[in-house]
Amino acid sequence: MAKLNFIAELGKQEIVMIRVFNAPRDLVFQALTDPAMIQQWWGPRYLTTTVEKMDLRHGGLWRYVQKNQEGHEYAFRGVYHEIVSPERLVYTIEFEGMPGHIGLETITLEEQDGKTIMTDKGVFQSVEDRDGMVQSGMEGGATESMDRLAELVEKD
Amino acid sequence: MAKLNFIAELGKQEIVMIRVFNAPRDLVFQALTDPAMIQQWWGPRYLTTTVEKMDLRHGGLWRYVQKNQEGHEYAFRGVYHEIVSPERLVYTIEFEGMPGHIGLETITLEEQDGKTIMTDKGVFQSVEDRDGMVQSGMEGGATESMDRLAELVEKD
Repeated sequence: MAKLNFIAELGKQEIVMIRVFNAPRDLVFQALTDPAMIQQWWGPRYLTTTVEKMDLRHGGLWRYVQKNQEGHEYAFRGVYHEIVSPERLVYTIEFEGMPGHIGLETITLEEQDGKTIMTDKGVFQSVEDRDGMVQSGMEGGATESMDRLAELVEKD
Repeated sequence: MAKLNFIAELGKQEIVMIRVFNAPRDLVFQALTDPAMIQQWWGPRYLTTTVEKMDLRHGGLWRYVQKNQEGHEYAFRGVYHEIVSPERLVYTIEFEGMPGHIGLETITLEEQDGKTIMTDKGVFQSVEDRDGMVQSGMEGGATESMDRLAELVEKD
């Protein structure tokens, strides 16, 4: 299984994640935009994710709530700037547990020989915010999410 | 009159602009959020600016249209992520003449001794996008806008 390429260059305020899926682009795009599918791969396995809002249009809101076994909740929210099916999503993202730190995320899907290359670039308001995301263990969580997404869309 | 401090560090993907206004914060915030006032200062003097949309809420849309004497139009649009009166605005921004290049802008207002320090930070999807903004002559346009805003809110 392809591994996640997680790139956080020193001194920059962005994180770039690249992952190749052995699946057609339309299906990967669907997994990114269908609430029922999102709930099956978004976040680590030990949390359950609920898609509370997902209004896929310029200005539409999204909000995902993660819950652990003790019932503690972690919510993320944002606003869509652009949805170009099946190739691009651009939206803001904010962890409600640390309000006021807002990122701009761009997901791009390219199809090559039946595989899909997903590039997920997050830019942050400062290098410090970006470094905080890296230090919070984002790489591990993102790797697990991408593995789960692969399980959902890749056929053996 | 205070000058605009325009900061675009080499290799970074942000532009930081700082300007001090000799005016209370509430009035500066009003000038940033009242469509009638926006039209009096946003952009260079040789263009007329029309606020077509300005829906100040999480997920609300904004769209400004500038017109020159020949009737040629330049439009900018985006989505609000956060409005905290009178201290903070966070929104996306896209020049419709170059679609797909999206920035995240954060305006912060601080009051000190009756003056207001405005910090406007734009972060871009890449260093190339940021450099393109600088090369398009953004500093001159922003300086003129800030001078016009000062004329509107500062009392002699």
